[in-house]
Amino acid sequence: MKPAERRQQLRDALIAAAEERIAADGLSGLKARDLARDVGCALGAIYNVFPDLDALILEVNARTLAGFATFIAEKKAGSEDGPIEALTRLATRYLEFAVANQRRWRALFQHRMTDGRPVPDWYREAQTALFVEIEAPLREICPDRAEEERRLLARSLFSAVHGIVSLGLDEKLAAVPLERLREQLREIVTALGRGLSTA
Amino acid sequence: MKPAERRQQLRDALIAAAEERIAADGLSGLKARDLARDVGCALGAIYNVFPDLDALILEVNARTLAGFATFIAEKKAGSEDGPIEALTRLATRYLEFAVANQRRWRALFQHRMTDGRPVPDWYREAQTALFVEIEAPLREICPDRAEEERRLLARSLFSAVHGIVSLGLDEKLAAVPLERLREQLREIVTALGRGLSTA
Repeated sequence: MKPAERRQQLRDALIAAAEERIAADGLSGLKARDLARDVGCALGAIYNVFPDLDALILEVNARTLAGFATFIAEKKAGSEDGPIEALTRLATRYLEFAVANQRRWRALFQHRMTDGRPVPDWYREAQTALFVEIEAPLREICPDRAEEERRLLARSLFSAVHGIVSLGLDEKLAAVPLERLREQLREIVTALGRGLSTA
Repeated sequence: MKPAERRQQLRDALIAAAEERIAADGLSGLKARDLARDVGCALGAIYNVFPDLDALILEVNARTLAGFATFIAEKKAGSEDGPIEALTRLATRYLEFAVANQRRWRALFQHRMTDGRPVPDWYREAQTALFVEIEAPLREICPDRAEEERRLLARSLFSAVHGIVSLGLDEKLAAVPLERLREQLREIVTALGRGLSTA
C-alpha cells in the first residue's frame, strides 16, 4: 500500500471511530487516546493525518450534517403539499432526526473550536445545506422578498425549530412528551408560515 | 455568631463566588476547590452547606432566572402596546439579557444534573416565571384556547426565541450581526403572533 493510501485509511478509520464514540457517549468525553486505541495506532499518528482533534470532529460533524440534510429533505412518495405543509414537514423531520441521532445531533451544536478560531469555509458550506430546503417553500410563501432576506429568514426558521426541539428534548425547560412536542412544532411552524404569507 | 448564621453566611458566600466564576469563565470550568479558596473555607465545608455542586449551581441559576424574568418583564414607561408588540418586546428583551449576561445565561441551559437526576420542583417553578409573561399577550392573541394549551404555546414561543438567540449568538450556524438578529427576532415573532391570531 502506498503511503498516501495508508494515510487515507488511517484518516477514515479515525473518523469512523470518533463518530462511533460521539454516537455512544457524546462529544464531551472524546479523547485522542481512546481513538488511537480504537484504531490501533500510536497517539502521535493521529496528528499526522489531522492537525488537531477539532479537525477530526469537524469531519464527523460534516458527515452528520450531510445525513441530517438528506434526512430532512426526504419526502414520502406522492406527498405534494403546499408550502406551509412543506415547512411543517421539514420541522417534523428535524425532530425525528434529532430523536434518532441525539448525541451526534447535539455534537453539531456543542462543538467549539479551540481558542475561538472560526470554522473553515468548507464546513460552513456544509451547514448551509440545512437551510436550502427551507428556502424553497419560503419562496412560495413570500415571493416578493429579496433572495438575501429569504436566506436570513430560512436561518431564523431553522433556529426557531432548533430551539423548540432542543429545549423540548432537554426536558430542562419543557418536560413535554414527544407527541406533544410534534404537535407544538406543527402549530408554531404553521402559525409562522401563515403569518409570513400575510405580511 | 450562632452556627445556623455561620452556615447561612457560608452558603451565601459560596453562591456569590460561584456566580462570579460562572459569569467570568462559564459553567464548565467550575470547581469546588476554587470556590473553597475564593471564600476561604475547607473543601469539605462546602458539603456541609450543599449536598453537592449541583445544588450550588441550581442556586446560582435560580438567581439568574429571577433576574432574567424581571428583566424580560420590564416595560419602558408609557409603552402601552398591542399583544404582538408585547411579544416582540419580550423577545428583544430576551436577546438583550442574553447578550449582557452571556455566560450566566448559557449556564441555565448547559447545566445537567449528575446521573440524570431531575431538577427539584422549586427550581422548575423558578423556570416557569420565564413563561408567565408570554402568557398574557397570548391570552389576547388567542383568547379561545384552553389555559393549558396556551401554557404550552408560551413554552414553545420561548423555545423558538431561545433558538434564534442561541444560534445567533453562537455564530456557529448563523454569523448574523446583532442588529440583524434583532430584526429577525422581531420579524419571526411578529409573523408568529399574526399567524396565531388568525388561527
